[in-house]
Amino acid sequence: MVTFDFIAFDADDTLWHSERLYAEAQKQFTQLLASYHDPEWINDRLYQTEIRNIQHFGYGVKAFALSLIETAIELTEGRISSREIQEIVDWAKKMLNSDVELLPYVSQIIPQLSSQYPLMIITKGDLLDQETKIKKSGLGKYFQHIEIVSQKTLEGYEKLLRKYSVEPGHFMMIGNSLPSDILPVLKLGGSAVHIPYEITWLHETAEQPPRDHSGYYELENLGQLPLLLERITQNRE
Amino acid sequence: MVTFDFIAFDADDTLWHSERLYAEAQKQFTQLLASYHDPEWINDRLYQTEIRNIQHFGYGVKAFALSLIETAIELTEGRISSREIQEIVDWAKKMLNSDVELLPYVSQIIPQLSSQYPLMIITKGDLLDQETKIKKSGLGKYFQHIEIVSQKTLEGYEKLLRKYSVEPGHFMMIGNSLPSDILPVLKLGGSAVHIPYEITWLHETAEQPPRDHSGYYELENLGQLPLLLERITQNRE
Repeated sequence: MVTFDFIAFDADDTLWHSERLYAEAQKQFTQLLASYHDPEWINDRLYQTEIRNIQHFGYGVKAFALSLIETAIELTEGRISSREIQEIVDWAKKMLNSDVELLPYVSQIIPQLSSQYPLMIITKGDLLDQETKIKKSGLGKYFQHIEIVSQKTLEGYEKLLRKYSVEPGHFMMIGNSLPSDILPVLKLGGSAVHIPYEITWLHETAEQPPRDHSGYYELENLGQLPLLLERITQNRE
Repeated sequence: MVTFDFIAFDADDTLWHSERLYAEAQKQFTQLLASYHDPEWINDRLYQTEIRNIQHFGYGVKAFALSLIETAIELTEGRISSREIQEIVDWAKKMLNSDVELLPYVSQIIPQLSSQYPLMIITKGDLLDQETKIKKSGLGKYFQHIEIVSQKTLEGYEKLLRKYSVEPGHFMMIGNSLPSDILPVLKLGGSAVHIPYEITWLHETAEQPPRDHSGYYELENLGQLPLLLERITQNRE
Protein backbone atom coordinates (compact mmCIF):
# COMPACT_ATOMS: atom_id res chain seq x y z
CA MET A 1 0.00 0.00 0.00
CA VAL A 2 2.97 2.34 -0.54
CA THR A 3 1.75 5.37 -2.42
CA PHE A 4 4.98 7.30 -2.01
CA ASP A 5 8.05 6.13 -3.91
CA PHE A 6 10.19 8.44 -1.84
CA ILE A 7 9.78 10.44 1.32
CA ALA A 8 12.39 13.19 1.49
CA PHE A 9 13.45 15.18 4.52
CA ASP A 10 15.13 18.50 4.88
CA ALA A 11 17.90 18.22 7.49
CA ASP A 12 18.69 21.50 9.34
CA ASP A 13 15.80 22.36 11.69
CA THR A 14 13.80 19.39 10.43
CA LEU A 15 15.90 16.49 11.68
CA TRP A 16 18.21 18.43 14.01
CA HIS A 17 18.64 21.87 15.54
CA SER A 18 20.58 24.33 13.41
CA GLU A 19 19.05 27.79 13.27
CA ARG A 20 19.53 28.33 16.97
CA LEU A 21 23.31 28.09 16.47
CA TYR A 22 23.01 30.98 14.03
CA ALA A 23 20.69 32.87 16.38
CA GLU A 24 23.15 32.41 19.24
CA ALA A 25 26.08 33.68 17.16
CA GLN A 26 23.95 36.57 15.98
CA LYS A 27 23.15 37.48 19.59
CA GLN A 28 26.86 37.52 20.41
CA PHE A 29 27.35 39.64 17.31
CA THR A 30 24.88 42.30 18.47
CA GLN A 31 26.68 42.30 21.83
CA LEU A 32 30.04 42.72 20.11
CA LEU A 33 28.74 45.79 18.28
CA ALA A 34 26.54 47.05 21.13
CA SER A 35 28.56 50.25 21.59
CA TYR A 36 28.01 51.19 17.93
CA HIS A 37 24.37 50.35 17.17
CA ASP A 38 21.22 48.87 18.64
CA PRO A 39 20.48 45.18 18.00
CA GLU A 40 17.66 45.81 15.54
CA TRP A 41 19.78 47.89 13.22
CA ILE A 42 22.64 45.39 13.45
CA ASN A 43 20.32 42.48 12.65
CA ASP A 44 18.79 44.38 9.78
CA ARG A 45 22.14 45.31 8.23
CA LEU A 46 23.45 41.78 8.72
CA TYR A 47 20.43 40.40 6.90
CA GLN A 48 21.00 42.78 3.99
CA THR A 49 24.63 41.69 3.77
CA GLU A 50 23.70 38.00 3.91
CA ILE A 51 21.14 38.33 1.13
CA ARG A 52 23.55 40.34 -1.01
CA ASN A 53 26.26 37.73 -0.47
CA ILE A 54 24.18 34.61 -1.24
CA GLN A 55 25.06 35.00 -4.92
CA HIS A 56 28.77 34.83 -4.05
CA PHE A 57 28.92 32.65 -0.97
CA GLY A 58 25.74 30.56 -1.00
CA TYR A 59 24.36 29.20 2.28
CA GLY A 60 25.98 27.79 5.39
CA VAL A 61 28.30 28.69 8.22
CA LYS A 62 31.26 29.91 6.15
CA ALA A 63 29.03 32.27 4.19
CA PHE A 64 27.49 33.45 7.45
CA ALA A 65 30.92 34.12 8.98
CA LEU A 66 32.08 36.14 5.98
CA SER A 67 28.87 38.19 6.12
CA LEU A 68 29.31 38.79 9.86
CA ILE A 69 32.85 40.05 9.23
CA GLU A 70 31.74 42.32 6.41
CA THR A 71 28.84 43.73 8.43
CA ALA A 72 31.06 44.33 11.45
CA ILE A 73 33.53 46.33 9.37
CA GLU A 74 30.75 48.30 7.70
CA LEU A 75 28.82 49.08 10.90
CA THR A 76 31.90 50.15 12.86
CA GLU A 77 33.27 52.09 9.89
CA GLY A 78 36.40 50.00 10.12
CA ARG A 79 36.91 50.49 13.86
CA ILE A 80 36.30 46.88 14.80
CA SER A 81 39.58 45.31 15.90
CA SER A 82 41.09 42.33 14.18
CA ARG A 83 40.97 40.47 17.50
CA GLU A 84 37.21 40.87 17.42
CA ILE A 85 37.17 39.60 13.85
CA GLN A 86 39.12 36.56 15.00
CA GLU A 87 36.33 36.02 17.54
CA ILE A 88 33.86 35.81 14.66
CA VAL A 89 36.03 33.24 12.87
CA ASP A 90 36.13 31.26 16.12
CA TRP A 91 32.32 31.34 16.37
CA ALA A 92 32.18 29.77 12.91
CA LYS A 93 34.51 26.96 13.97
CA LYS A 94 32.49 26.41 17.11
CA MET A 95 29.27 26.24 15.09
CA LEU A 96 30.82 23.72 12.70
CA ASN A 97 32.09 21.60 15.58
CA SER A 98 28.99 21.65 17.71
CA ASP A 99 27.15 18.45 18.50
CA VAL A 100 24.15 17.46 16.43
CA GLU A 101 21.01 17.56 18.57
CA LEU A 102 18.15 15.65 17.03
CA LEU A 103 14.70 17.20 17.15
CA PRO A 104 11.96 15.43 19.17
CA TYR A 105 10.67 12.12 17.75
CA VAL A 106 13.38 11.96 15.05
CA SER A 107 15.32 9.09 16.59
CA GLN A 108 12.15 6.92 16.76
CA ILE A 109 10.30 8.03 13.63
CA ILE A 110 13.11 7.88 11.07
CA PRO A 111 14.11 4.23 11.71
CA GLN A 112 10.44 3.27 11.83
CA LEU A 113 9.58 5.00 8.54
CA SER A 114 12.69 3.67 6.83
CA SER A 115 11.27 0.16 7.12
CA GLN A 116 8.13 1.25 5.27
CA TYR A 117 9.36 3.81 2.71
CA PRO A 118 12.57 4.64 0.87
CA LEU A 119 13.82 7.79 2.58
CA MET A 120 15.97 10.60 1.21
CA ILE A 121 17.64 13.71 2.65
CA ILE A 122 17.57 16.88 0.55
CA THR A 123 19.51 19.62 2.27
CA LYS A 124 21.35 22.78 1.31
CA GLY A 125 24.43 24.39 2.81
CA ASP A 126 28.13 23.65 3.03
CA LEU A 127 28.99 20.22 1.65
CA LEU A 128 31.46 19.24 4.37
CA ASP A 129 29.30 20.68 7.17
CA GLN A 130 26.20 18.79 6.03
CA GLU A 131 28.12 15.54 5.58
CA THR A 132 29.64 15.91 9.04
CA LYS A 133 26.23 16.50 10.61
CA ILE A 134 24.69 13.49 8.86
CA LYS A 135 27.58 11.38 10.18
CA LYS A 136 27.27 12.78 13.71
CA SER A 137 23.49 12.25 13.69
CA GLY A 138 23.87 8.49 13.22
CA LEU A 139 20.89 8.61 10.86
CA GLY A 140 22.74 8.17 7.57
CA LYS A 141 21.96 4.47 7.31
CA TYR A 142 18.21 5.09 7.21
CA PHE A 143 18.38 7.17 4.04
CA GLN A 144 18.77 5.60 0.60
CA HIS A 145 19.94 8.84 -0.96
CA ILE A 146 21.47 11.98 0.42
CA GLU A 147 21.40 15.06 -1.76
CA ILE A 148 23.27 18.17 -0.68
CA VAL A 149 22.28 20.99 -3.00
CA SER A 150 23.23 24.64 -3.33
CA GLN A 151 19.63 25.85 -3.69
CA LYS A 152 16.18 24.30 -3.38
CA THR A 153 14.35 25.53 -6.44
CA LEU A 154 11.55 24.10 -8.53
CA GLU A 155 14.10 23.22 -11.23
CA GLY A 156 16.29 21.56 -8.63
CA TYR A 157 13.47 19.34 -7.39
CA GLU A 158 12.45 18.55 -10.96
CA LYS A 159 15.99 17.41 -11.72
CA LEU A 160 16.14 15.26 -8.58
CA LEU A 161 12.81 13.60 -9.33
CA ARG A 162 13.98 12.87 -12.86
CA LYS A 163 17.26 11.49 -11.54
CA TYR A 164 15.45 9.00 -9.32
CA SER A 165 12.57 8.40 -11.78
CA VAL A 166 9.93 9.51 -9.28
CA GLU A 167 6.59 10.98 -10.33
CA PRO A 168 5.80 14.14 -8.31
CA GLY A 169 2.51 12.54 -7.26
CA HIS A 170 4.49 9.81 -5.52
CA PHE A 171 6.93 12.14 -3.79
CA MET A 172 6.64 13.71 -0.35
CA MET A 173 8.95 16.37 1.07
CA ILE A 174 9.07 17.24 4.76
CA GLY A 175 10.72 20.39 6.04
CA ASN A 176 10.60 23.59 8.05
CA SER A 177 11.05 26.11 5.23
CA LEU A 178 8.05 27.17 3.14
CA PRO A 179 10.07 28.61 0.21
CA SER A 180 12.65 25.80 0.16
CA ASP A 181 10.82 22.63 1.20
CA ILE A 182 7.13 23.23 0.58
CA LEU A 183 6.18 25.67 -2.18
CA PRO A 184 8.33 24.30 -5.04
CA VAL A 185 7.25 20.72 -4.27
CA LEU A 186 3.55 21.66 -4.25
CA LYS A 187 4.03 23.50 -7.53
CA LEU A 188 5.39 20.31 -9.07
CA GLY A 189 2.34 18.40 -7.89
CA GLY A 190 4.06 16.65 -5.00
CA SER A 191 3.05 16.37 -1.36
CA ALA A 192 4.73 18.61 1.20
CA VAL A 193 4.58 18.53 4.98
CA HIS A 194 5.49 21.73 6.76
CA ILE A 195 6.81 21.34 10.30
CA PRO A 196 7.75 24.83 11.50
CA TYR A 197 10.88 25.17 13.62
CA GLU A 198 11.01 27.41 16.70
CA ILE A 199 13.01 30.04 14.79
CA THR A 200 12.78 30.85 11.08
CA TRP A 201 15.45 32.85 9.27
CA LEU A 202 13.71 35.77 7.56
CA HIS A 203 15.02 34.59 4.19
CA GLU A 204 13.17 31.27 4.66
CA THR A 205 9.78 32.81 5.30
CA ALA A 206 6.95 32.93 2.79
CA GLU A 207 3.20 33.10 2.75
CA GLN A 208 1.59 29.80 3.67
CA PRO A 209 -0.30 27.95 0.96
CA PRO A 210 -4.06 27.72 1.60
CA ARG A 211 -4.76 24.99 4.15
CA ASP A 212 -6.79 22.99 1.65
CA HIS A 213 -4.09 23.10 -1.07
CA SER A 214 -3.85 19.64 -2.56
CA GLY A 215 -0.90 17.75 -1.10
CA TYR A 216 -0.16 20.35 1.57
CA TYR A 217 -0.02 19.35 5.23
CA GLU A 218 1.09 21.10 8.36
CA LEU A 219 2.26 19.28 11.47
CA GLU A 220 3.57 20.42 14.83
CA ASN A 221 6.22 17.75 15.09
CA LEU A 222 7.59 14.68 13.37
CA GLY A 223 5.80 12.40 15.83
CA GLN A 224 2.57 13.15 13.97
CA LEU A 225 3.90 11.98 10.61
CA PRO A 226 3.08 8.23 10.74
CA LEU A 227 -0.60 8.93 11.44
CA LEU A 228 -0.74 11.47 8.62
CA LEU A 229 0.85 9.00 6.20
CA GLU A 230 -1.62 6.33 7.24
CA ARG A 231 -4.49 8.73 6.67
CA ILE A 232 -3.21 9.83 3.24
CA THR A 233 -2.39 6.37 1.91
CA GLN A 234 -5.73 4.96 3.08
CA ASN A 235 -7.74 7.83 1.60
CA ARG A 236 -6.07 7.32 -1.73
CA GLU A 237 -7.13 3.75 -2.07
CA MET B 1 34.90 -1.51 -28.30
CA VAL B 2 34.41 0.68 -25.22
CA THR B 3 36.56 -0.68 -22.43
CA PHE B 4 35.78 2.15 -20.07
CA ASP B 5 32.27 2.41 -18.68
CA PHE B 6 33.04 5.89 -17.41
CA ILE B 7 35.77 8.42 -17.92
CA ALA B 8 35.81 10.91 -15.07
CA PHE B 9 37.49 14.29 -14.99
CA ASP B 10 38.61 16.48 -12.16
CA ALA B 11 37.52 20.07 -12.85
CA ASP B 12 39.75 22.75 -11.25
CA ASP B 13 43.13 22.85 -13.05
CA THR B 14 42.13 19.88 -15.21
CA LEU B 15 39.32 21.42 -17.28
CA TRP B 16 39.85 25.07 -16.36
CA HIS B 17 42.32 27.33 -14.60
CA SER B 18 41.79 27.65 -10.86
CA GLU B 19 44.97 27.46 -8.81
CA ARG B 20 46.34 30.60 -10.39
CA LEU B 21 43.45 32.57 -8.86
CA TYR B 22 44.59 31.34 -5.46
CA ALA B 23 48.23 32.06 -6.30
CA GLU B 24 47.33 35.58 -7.37
CA ALA B 25 45.38 36.27 -4.18
CA GLN B 26 48.23 34.80 -2.17
CA LYS B 27 50.69 37.12 -3.88
CA GLN B 28 48.50 40.10 -2.96
CA PHE B 29 48.38 38.70 0.55
CA THR B 30 52.17 38.65 0.89
CA GLN B 31 52.21 42.24 -0.38
CA LEU B 32 49.56 43.23 2.16
CA LEU B 33 51.71 41.86 4.97
CA ALA B 34 55.06 42.86 3.42
CA SER B 35 55.89 45.28 6.23
CA TYR B 36 55.50 42.52 8.82
CA HIS B 37 57.15 39.44 7.32
CA ASP B 38 58.90 38.12 4.24
CA PRO B 39 56.81 36.26 1.65
CA GLU B 40 58.22 32.83 2.48
CA TRP B 41 57.25 33.02 6.11
CA ILE B 42 53.80 34.36 5.23
CA ASN B 43 53.22 31.55 2.70
CA ASP B 44 54.40 28.98 5.18
CA ARG B 45 52.17 30.24 7.99
CA LEU B 46 49.20 30.52 5.63
CA TYR B 47 49.70 26.93 4.55
CA GLN B 48 49.78 25.77 8.17
CA THR B 49 46.53 27.64 8.85
CA GLU B 50 44.85 26.21 5.75
CA ILE B 51 45.79 22.64 6.65
CA ARG B 52 44.65 23.13 10.25
CA ASN B 53 41.34 24.58 9.03
CA ILE B 54 40.48 21.89 6.44
CA GLN B 55 38.77 19.86 9.18
CA HIS B 56 36.47 22.83 9.91
CA PHE B 57 36.12 24.61 6.59
CA GLY B 58 36.93 22.02 3.92
CA TYR B 59 38.19 23.19 0.52
CA GLY B 60 37.35 26.14 -1.70
CA VAL B 61 37.41 29.91 -1.82
CA LYS B 62 35.42 30.60 1.36
CA ALA B 63 37.70 28.33 3.38
CA PHE B 64 40.71 30.04 1.80
CA ALA B 65 39.37 33.52 2.66
CA LEU B 66 38.76 32.59 6.30
CA SER B 67 42.29 31.16 6.52
CA LEU B 68 43.76 34.31 4.95
CA ILE B 69 41.94 36.42 7.54
CA GLU B 70 43.08 34.25 10.42
CA THR B 71 46.69 34.24 9.21
CA ALA B 72 46.69 38.01 8.72
CA ILE B 73 45.51 38.56 12.29
CA GLU B 74 48.04 36.09 13.65
CA LEU B 75 51.01 37.39 11.67
CA THR B 76 50.35 41.05 12.46
CA GLU B 77 49.56 40.25 16.10
CA GLY B 78 46.21 41.87 15.60
CA ARG B 79 47.55 45.04 13.98
CA ILE B 80 45.99 44.41 10.57
CA SER B 81 43.18 46.90 10.02
CA SER B 82 39.62 45.85 9.39
CA ARG B 83 39.75 47.72 6.07
CA GLU B 84 42.51 45.37 5.01
CA ILE B 85 40.43 42.42 6.16
CA GLN B 86 37.60 43.72 3.98
CA GLU B 87 40.07 43.66 1.09
CA ILE B 88 40.56 39.95 1.70
CA VAL B 89 36.79 39.36 1.65
CA ASP B 90 36.66 41.29 -1.62
CA TRP B 91 39.37 39.06 -3.14
CA ALA B 92 37.20 36.06 -2.31
CA LYS B 93 34.23 37.59 -4.10
CA LYS B 94 36.41 38.45 -7.08
CA MET B 95 37.72 34.89 -7.22
CA LEU B 96 34.19 33.49 -7.10
CA ASN B 97 33.04 35.85 -9.84
CA SER B 98 35.96 35.44 -12.19
CA ASP B 99 35.47 34.03 -15.66
CA VAL B 100 36.09 30.38 -16.29
CA GLU B 101 39.08 29.95 -18.60
CA LEU B 102 39.24 26.52 -20.15
CA LEU B 103 42.60 24.80 -20.37
CA PRO B 104 44.07 24.08 -23.82
CA TYR B 105 42.30 21.39 -25.90
CA VAL B 106 39.37 21.10 -23.43
CA SER B 107 36.80 22.71 -25.72
CA GLN B 108 37.63 20.26 -28.54
CA ILE B 109 38.44 17.09 -26.63
CA ILE B 110 35.49 16.98 -24.20
CA PRO B 111 32.72 17.15 -26.86
CA GLN B 112 34.64 14.65 -29.00
CA LEU B 113 35.12 12.16 -26.14
CA SER B 114 31.52 12.56 -24.97
CA SER B 115 30.34 10.98 -28.22
CA GLN B 116 32.50 7.90 -27.50
CA TYR B 117 32.35 7.48 -23.72
CA PRO B 118 30.03 8.38 -20.86
CA LEU B 119 31.83 11.24 -19.09
CA MET B 120 31.65 12.32 -15.46
CA ILE B 121 33.02 15.22 -13.42
CA ILE B 122 34.31 14.46 -9.94
CA THR B 123 35.39 17.65 -8.23
CA LYS B 124 35.79 18.93 -4.70
CA GLY B 125 35.30 22.41 -3.25
CA ASP B 126 32.40 24.73 -2.55
CA LEU B 127 29.13 23.39 -3.93
CA LEU B 128 27.83 26.69 -5.31
CA ASP B 129 31.23 27.72 -6.68
CA GLN B 130 31.72 24.44 -8.53
CA GLU B 131 28.18 24.50 -9.94
CA THR B 132 28.67 28.07 -11.10
CA LYS B 133 31.92 27.21 -12.84
CA ILE B 134 30.41 24.19 -14.57
CA LYS B 135 27.60 26.43 -15.81
CA LYS B 136 29.99 29.17 -16.96
CA SER B 137 32.21 26.62 -18.72
CA GLY B 138 29.38 25.56 -21.04
CA LEU B 139 30.62 21.97 -20.69
CA GLY B 140 27.86 20.64 -18.42
CA LYS B 141 25.94 19.01 -21.26
CA TYR B 142 28.83 16.70 -22.13
CA PHE B 143 28.86 15.05 -18.71
CA GLN B 144 26.33 12.39 -17.73
CA HIS B 145 27.03 12.83 -14.04
CA ILE B 146 28.51 15.61 -11.98
CA GLU B 147 29.71 14.75 -8.51
CA ILE B 148 30.82 17.53 -6.19
CA VAL B 149 32.43 15.93 -3.16
CA SER B 150 33.99 17.25 0.04
CA GLN B 151 37.07 14.98 -0.20
CA LYS B 152 38.52 12.62 -2.78
CA THR B 153 39.41 9.56 -0.78
CA LEU B 154 39.64 5.88 -1.65
CA GLU B 155 36.36 5.31 0.22
CA GLY B 156 34.77 8.18 -1.69
CA TYR B 157 35.73 6.71 -5.06
CA GLU B 158 34.60 3.26 -3.94
CA LYS B 159 31.19 4.66 -3.03
CA LEU B 160 30.87 6.50 -6.36
CA LEU B 161 31.80 3.42 -8.36
CA ARG B 162 29.24 1.40 -6.41
CA LYS B 163 26.63 4.10 -6.98
CA TYR B 164 27.09 3.93 -10.74
CA SER B 165 27.76 0.15 -10.81
CA VAL B 166 31.16 0.57 -12.43
CA GLU B 167 33.97 -1.95 -11.98
CA PRO B 168 37.27 -0.19 -11.14
CA GLY B 169 38.85 -1.91 -14.14
CA HIS B 170 36.41 -0.07 -16.39
CA PHE B 171 36.90 3.32 -14.79
CA MET B 172 39.36 6.03 -15.75
CA MET B 173 40.02 9.23 -13.79
CA ILE B 174 41.85 12.21 -15.24
CA GLY B 175 43.22 15.00 -13.09
CA ASN B 176 46.08 17.19 -11.96
CA SER B 177 46.35 16.08 -8.34
CA LEU B 178 48.26 12.92 -7.47
CA PRO B 179 46.74 12.44 -3.99
CA SER B 180 43.18 13.33 -5.05
CA ASP B 181 42.79 12.11 -8.61
CA ILE B 182 45.43 9.45 -9.20
CA LEU B 183 46.61 7.47 -6.16
CA PRO B 184 43.21 6.42 -4.71
CA VAL B 185 41.96 5.37 -8.16
CA LEU B 186 45.08 3.27 -8.85
CA LYS B 187 44.73 1.64 -5.44
CA LEU B 188 41.20 0.59 -6.37
CA GLY B 189 42.48 -0.98 -9.59
CA GLY B 190 41.25 1.76 -11.89
CA SER B 191 43.11 3.70 -14.56
CA ALA B 192 44.35 7.20 -13.80
CA VAL B 193 45.79 9.84 -16.08
CA HIS B 194 47.87 12.54 -14.45
CA ILE B 195 48.04 15.84 -16.31
CA PRO B 196 50.07 18.21 -14.11
CA TYR B 197 48.96 21.84 -13.93
CA GLU B 198 51.44 24.73 -14.05
CA ILE B 199 51.06 25.28 -10.27
CA THR B 200 50.36 22.65 -7.63
CA TRP B 201 49.15 23.53 -4.15
CA LEU B 202 51.57 21.93 -1.67
CA HIS B 203 48.66 20.00 -0.12
CA GLU B 204 47.98 18.32 -3.47
CA THR B 205 51.51 17.04 -3.97
CA ALA B 206 52.55 13.43 -3.46
CA GLU B 207 55.18 11.05 -4.71
CA GLN B 208 54.51 9.85 -8.24
CA PRO B 209 53.61 6.20 -8.71
CA PRO B 210 56.25 4.22 -10.64
CA ARG B 211 55.92 4.93 -14.35
CA ASP B 212 55.11 1.30 -15.10
CA HIS B 213 52.35 1.06 -12.46
CA SER B 214 49.43 -0.75 -14.02
CA GLY B 215 46.77 1.71 -15.16
CA TYR B 216 48.91 4.80 -14.55
CA TYR B 217 49.52 7.28 -17.32
CA GLU B 218 51.04 10.72 -17.46
CA LEU B 219 50.24 13.27 -20.16
CA GLU B 220 51.32 16.83 -20.79
CA ASN B 221 47.91 18.04 -21.90
CA LEU B 222 44.40 16.87 -22.62
CA GLY B 223 45.08 16.94 -26.36
CA GLN B 224 47.05 13.72 -25.94
CA LEU B 225 44.16 11.82 -24.34
CA PRO B 226 42.38 10.43 -27.46
CA LEU B 227 45.56 8.77 -28.70
CA LEU B 228 46.24 7.28 -25.27
CA LEU B 229 42.69 5.92 -25.11
CA GLU B 230 43.06 4.41 -28.55
CA ARG B 231 46.31 2.78 -27.52
CA ILE B 232 44.86 1.38 -24.27
CA THR B 233 41.63 0.06 -25.72
CA GLN B 234 43.42 -1.59 -28.66
CA ASN B 235 46.02 -3.22 -26.43
CA ARG B 236 43.31 -4.65 -24.27
CA GLU B 237 41.63 -6.45 -27.09
